Amino acid sequence: NGDHQSITPQGILEQQAEKWQVPLTSKAFAHKLDEIDPLKHMRDEFVIPTVGDLPNADTTRFDSNSESIYLCGHSLGLLPKRVRTAINGWLEDWAKLGVHGHVHGRNPFAKCDYPCIPTLKKLLGAQDNEVMVMNQLTSNIHIMMISFYRPTKERFKILYEERAFPSDEYALHSQMHLHGYDPNIASIKVSPRKNETYVRTEDILDVLEKQGQSIALLFLSGVQYYTGQLFDMETITRAGQKQGCVVGWDLAHALGNVPLHLHDWNVDFGVFCSYKYLNGGAGGIGGIFIHSNQFDKDYPRLDGWWGNRYDTRFQMRSEIDRDIGADGFRMSNPSIHQCTTLAASLEVFKESGIEKIRAKSKLLTQYMQYLIETEINQPSSKYQIKFLTPSDPEQRGAQLSLHIVGADAKQIFNELERCGVSLDVRGNVIRVAAVPLYNSFLDVYQFVMLLKNVRI
Amino acid sequence: NGDHQSITPQGILEQQAEKWQVPLTSKAFAHKLDEIDPLKHMRDEFVIPTVGDLPNADTTRFDSNSESIYLCGHSLGLLPKRVRTAINGWLEDWAKLGVHGHVHGRNPFAKCDYPCIPTLKKLLGAQDNEVMVMNQLTSNIHIMMISFYRPTKERFKILYEERAFPSDEYALHSQMHLHGYDPNIASIKVSPRKNETYVRTEDILDVLEKQGQSIALLFLSGVQYYTGQLFDMETITRAGQKQGCVVGWDLAHALGNVPLHLHDWNVDFGVFCSYKYLNGGAGGIGGIFIHSNQFDKDYPRLDGWWGNRYDTRFQMRSEIDRDIGADGFRMSNPSIHQCTTLAASLEVFKESGIEKIRAKSKLLTQYMQYLIETEINQPSSKYQIKFLTPSDPEQRGAQLSLHIVGADAKQIFNELERCGVSLDVRGNVIRVAAVPLYNSFLDVYQFVMLLKNVRI
Ligand SMILES: Cc1ncc(COP(=O)(O)O)c(C=O)c1O
Ligand SMILES: Cc1ncc(COP(=O)(O)O)c(C=O)c1O
Repeated sequence: NGDHQSITPQGILEQQAEKWQVPLTSKAFAHKLDEIDPLKHMRDEFVIPTVGDLPNADTTRFDSNSESIYLCGHSLGLLPKRVRTAINGWLEDWAKLGVHGHVHGRNPFAKCDYPCIPTLKKLLGAQDNEVMVMNQLTSNIHIMMISFYRPTKERFKILYEERAFPSDEYALHSQMHLHGYDPNIASIKVSPRKNETYVRTEDILDVLEKQGQSIALLFLSGVQYYTGQLFDMETITRAGQKQGCVVGWDLAHALGNVPLHLHDWNVDFGVFCSYKYLNGGAGGIGGIFIHSNQFDKDYPRLDGWWGNRYDTRFQMRSEIDRDIGADGFRMSNPSIHQCTTLAASLEVFKESGIEKIRAKSKLLTQYMQYLIETEINQPSSKYQIKFLTPSDPEQRGAQLSLHIVGADAKQIFNELERCGVSLDVRGNVIRVAAVPLYNSFLDVYQFVMLLKNVRI
Repeated sequence: NGDHQSITPQGILEQQAEKWQVPLTSKAFAHKLDEIDPLKHMRDEFVIPTVGDLPNADTTRFDSNSESIYLCGHSLGLLPKRVRTAINGWLEDWAKLGVHGHVHGRNPFAKCDYPCIPTLKKLLGAQDNEVMVMNQLTSNIHIMMISFYRPTKERFKILYEERAFPSDEYALHSQMHLHGYDPNIASIKVSPRKNETYVRTEDILDVLEKQGQSIALLFLSGVQYYTGQLFDMETITRAGQKQGCVVGWDLAHALGNVPLHLHDWNVDFGVFCSYKYLNGGAGGIGGIFIHSNQFDKDYPRLDGWWGNRYDTRFQMRSEIDRDIGADGFRMSNPSIHQCTTLAASLEVFKESGIEKIRAKSKLLTQYMQYLIETEINQPSSKYQIKFLTPSDPEQRGAQLSLHIVGADAKQIFNELERCGVSLDVRGNVIRVAAVPLYNSFLDVYQFVMLLKNVRI
């Protein structure tokens, strides 16, 4: 739908309301948006927990058989139905083939990482051998840093964001220690300005301009876990590289959420997990992106036999015959448990296409923001909601981080859980994501109505 | 059965043959051994592939519905039936609970590593907090080496065995490179003497005596993947530590195969995988052992949020509040895919007990050796089998490495596969393991008869 590119999500919503002659804040409008949603059949690919399934829902007030409102895909994606089939296939192969399952069967164990790659390439905007699945997110951060964080006396600092996900910060700190640097001296953190909630790109560029020569590595989140901010990866990458920094991105909250063009953006490396928007299950396999520019560079490595080329791997040579690019960073044989899950889950992305997903996502999120602004942020309300997330749709993904002002977020959270809504609270911030593959506009409408009328 | 401790496995076999008045080489003897096997009901816990299931079996000669002879547990253990139930439980929890599955449900995702620990502690001979499951084998080697390989100018070498598993060697080499050492200079490899097939303990002790002061780390396999040799871990560890070396063991082929007493042996660290004797599935979760003596030492670490204590993890502090011992080495949230599989598989070990498993294993392996010696290694045979594996039952686990002399091992291997036998060939060596949890004495008998009469 070419139109949708040129006008804002809010513009689209208003056009539709006008066209249908239905108020934007009405339930009918939500229904109508769902009707024309080109991805509406995708919801059926997932198991939506019922209200009665949820541990904290109040089934005296809400029908236990009705579908719950799941807005927690930024934390753990729902179960794709085809994962069940795929896992049964794996167990059948294991049962019947034992060790022969490594090369025979539905999804041969020894190559079970590969079926994940074609769709991941599309989601990441990667070229051949630039993506591999392996390990998990934090271990991949370390593996990448062993290769790409090469501090020198003059250039040893790491630039990252204030309130980075703790695991990233622990990883960065321990890597600094590994090289003998005090994190207090080797860290440069970019943060929002006073009274602002997210980081301005210009402020990052400014730090790079002023301190870039001391920075060995820039390591930021594509989408920030706490604020939901989508960074301008292309601009920041270019500015970092101009200063001679290596630029890596943590794509935990970006992958499957927003389109990525890592190759074209010339990103040096990226790391990701698969349990959020990719719906790969708790502790699902992680992965890496390595730009093809980096393939031939000589950096320290943590080698393992799975980084050896397939053809010669079982010759069991004593010197590694390293595979190309990201494939060469593998250490261990792939987990069929994790890979078969992810490969099945990614089929849904393949069939949907990230552009369609993103188009719907922008509408869903804008719709949520608009409803909150008009239905809740009124002078008469018991409390107000401040958005930590940028209101510009180009600067965010699916997630909205709602800072509750004038009420206790935890109390609101608890009551919403009783109403059968799944979300996430940290301090006074409630994080919600309407996930385009399985959330409907009605989910968003109902959530905002529950939030509006919450008993606190 | 106290008796079994004091007499040799061969002695037990002979006693039984005598008692039953049945020839040791008869099929009746195999049947009788199975009858009195205290672990015989455990076979029913596993899915044994039928002949018809196997890709290379010849169903014109062999009944496709009969159970195949699976002797490849040293490579990939068979599917424990209860894994199916456990995985269905996980999928049900994911389906119904989504993100709430982290703390609710049958095996809460966020703590799904813990159920594996009690049985692993027994199998490894470990105390509280000395064992954790995480990552996979090669990545764990690297993680341990970042902490425990601390070369200095005087002491920077690593002692390991000739023909170490390639992944271990690649890992060791790349860690040497990381510290700026040439593997040709920093490696000391112990090897079998000329015309011998496995390494003598005395030769390792000798190297330690002579070169120990230059050795930073001793890293050997508990059971050698190629020869099946079980090293005297206690003696070697003591000798290494006497020289001031750190001593770590790769337990890939030892865990679940032979009883381990890592704490009592004062082993500094160990690493393991779970897809061989533990039956945790291809690419199953790996793990580490850290001796409690090491808990308070100050070494470099690769930190991640999962190494933070559970109580404070979600406070999302910017400084890690590290968990005790092995738990503090975790980086990423555990994979429910892998952990639920392993936890279910380990139940079989819990119910069997490693001492019983080992007692049966010694009999199975001795029985196989004896049958090969008497049935195949005859002057009239078309070929001879030389054992790379020590004939002393105390110096081996389940595996026998059969060096084929006078025939093409690959041809024998292919023909055995056609007969419905699963095994493993590398060069002129066929590796077989009779796994006490699911292999019967009849399996061994039938295998040797097939081997004896093999058409080549
Ligand atoms: C002794 C040994 N070390 C390392 C490995 C590699 O294991 P992974 O692929 O799990 O890292 C194996 C695998 O069979 C092994 O037997
Ligand atoms: C941005 C970010 N980094 C790191 C992590 C830690 O991931 P893992 O436990 O897979 O290492 C997460 C998990 O939610 C995350 O969101």
